[in-house]
Amino acid sequence: MRSTFTLVGLRRVAALSLCAALLGLAPAHAGTDPLPSWNDTAPKKAIVALVEQVTKEGSPRFVSVAERIATFDNDGTLWAEQPMYFQLLFALDRVKVMAPQHPEWKTTEPFASLLEGDIKAALAGGEKSLMEIMMATHAGMTTDEFTGIVKNWIATARHPKTKRLYTEMVYQPMLELLAYLRANGFKTFIVSGGGIEFMRPWVEKAYGIPPEQVVGSSIKTSFELRDGKPVLVRLPAVNFIDDKAGKPVGINQHIGRRPIAAFGNSDGDQQMLEYTKAGSGLRLATLLLHDDAARETAYGPATGLPAGHIGTFTQALYDEAQKSGWVVIHMKNDWKRVFPWGQ
Amino acid sequence: MRSTFTLVGLRRVAALSLCAALLGLAPAHAGTDPLPSWNDTAPKKAIVALVEQVTKEGSPRFVSVAERIATFDNDGTLWAEQPMYFQLLFALDRVKVMAPQHPEWKTTEPFASLLEGDIKAALAGGEKSLMEIMMATHAGMTTDEFTGIVKNWIATARHPKTKRLYTEMVYQPMLELLAYLRANGFKTFIVSGGGIEFMRPWVEKAYGIPPEQVVGSSIKTSFELRDGKPVLVRLPAVNFIDDKAGKPVGINQHIGRRPIAAFGNSDGDQQMLEYTKAGSGLRLATLLLHDDAARETAYGPATGLPAGHIGTFTQALYDEAQKSGWVVIHMKNDWKRVFPWGQ
Repeated sequence: MRSTFTLVGLRRVAALSLCAALLGLAPAHAGTDPLPSWNDTAPKKAIVALVEQVTKEGSPRFVSVAERIATFDNDGTLWAEQPMYFQLLFALDRVKVMAPQHPEWKTTEPFASLLEGDIKAALAGGEKSLMEIMMATHAGMTTDEFTGIVKNWIATARHPKTKRLYTEMVYQPMLELLAYLRANGFKTFIVSGGGIEFMRPWVEKAYGIPPEQVVGSSIKTSFELRDGKPVLVRLPAVNFIDDKAGKPVGINQHIGRRPIAAFGNSDGDQQMLEYTKAGSGLRLATLLLHDDAARETAYGPATGLPAGHIGTFTQALYDEAQKSGWVVIHMKNDWKRVFPWGQ
Repeated sequence: MRSTFTLVGLRRVAALSLCAALLGLAPAHAGTDPLPSWNDTAPKKAIVALVEQVTKEGSPRFVSVAERIATFDNDGTLWAEQPMYFQLLFALDRVKVMAPQHPEWKTTEPFASLLEGDIKAALAGGEKSLMEIMMATHAGMTTDEFTGIVKNWIATARHPKTKRLYTEMVYQPMLELLAYLRANGFKTFIVSGGGIEFMRPWVEKAYGIPPEQVVGSSIKTSFELRDGKPVLVRLPAVNFIDDKAGKPVGINQHIGRRPIAAFGNSDGDQQMLEYTKAGSGLRLATLLLHDDAARETAYGPATGLPAGHIGTFTQALYDEAQKSGWVVIHMKNDWKRVFPWGQ
């Protein structure tokens, strides 16, 4: 029985390879390096070892294609998050665009400070101010209208420092990793604290991840008829926060399977990594450490710098990673190249 | 440019067909009828017309594979729902199993009546009683434990009338339809008022629909460490009701794209059909009318019988279907066969 099974397995693998070639897809095991922007250090070795073992039919660590789930945080993991979350920059841009329709903002905080260009003063009110800005800019329109607004912004807005489009602020090694995993039968999901509706309009093009594979924070929506046309209206009320302990909850809600590989970069990802590693068989949990001031940014453990104010990477998280066998990707040493357009 | 584009398209189609053959998948356009349990009446014609038009490259109605989303209600659409929702039968079975650990149930409604076999008296308290039964049987354990409980039940419990396993109570024509759509590049999703965690353990085997393509009602979960192991605990609190106006909300939350085809059978599906049809291009909305007392059950419009107490199909819904161009599948006339094992 075993030899027949193996033969069928091999035939299937051969057929899959032929199909990949016919369809112009990257073959699962190309002669060329599928991760050219990664140095041959521990993280790359751990990733390749996982993929080779879970895809090897007959191996005790083989995992069926259906169970090959990989989850990725977005901000600071797939794309940059400095000088602040890009979704917040989107919200600040929206306040400016919407200001003429809101004359009251001139005298109401946090909008008044924002419109005067004083972001620090605007955000001095903490989470309350932040929520006011988010709800004012993210709610009140239909989902289709919001998609249009995001698409327009992402196609035109520029990063304050690099002057690049935000979709150019993605990490080249992670693009290669996404493609490598998918070429080996993985389904790749985003599991981000960012807004699910803010990501969906552009992640398919940027990362090859379709809308139905995006898990994120959300506000409530309401089904309504507007001029006889059924629409979903975005309401100024939080529905779900996909961060920290919310990440495993979001994964279960949307995916319904435990990932076999998870990638994050901050304290907000800890529970996702714990949940991933608690599954049976081989599991990979990784954290990207931003320790590369020259090419991108540096903060947190092993940099001699504080833990960071956007994606917070504390010493406690670093210690937990060492203790639990999570792989830390040190940007400076482990990546040959950071951005598609840069070094 | 156009001819090159078409040639590339044709080459890709040829490659896909070859791959389907190599991998032993059903080819998209077999010589044999992909829907043998359907009579050649209006519903089958509408389904085939949709599939042929949206898959025809170069046609103005062509839809990319990524956008080929089809959503299916479950109870009364993919499997039967008489004499009551199967999930409720599961809950009643659980009350009996759990009763020894709950001596107080002997004197507390709705459990006391249930344990005496008087379901009608138990449910006399309406939604409040129902929620008490659901929360007592669906919450308080980890998600993994609940999955185990459902798997055990679905593998052994029998339908009260047919004495079949519940997974045999699925509709053969719908199994063919799911396979036909997938063979033509569609992603098939369940969008059901039933519990998302109740469906996931068995729908992959029964329908070929993976957990991440199931949208349903849910209770809240909490991420916790139990004996140092990270788990998700099911809490006795409603998270989301995926019914009526909740269906478009659930579709948007989980899928993030508007379906091009939607299949339901009751008033709870109306908003899903409205939302589907409101998209641009060719869209198909269908309702299954149970009018076949001999082979399954009969209720609602055109049967001379009331609208039904489980899946309610009112005259107003029937009128809306006529007005809006939704296709009504009349089980009696449109299906050659109802169950895989029966007529």
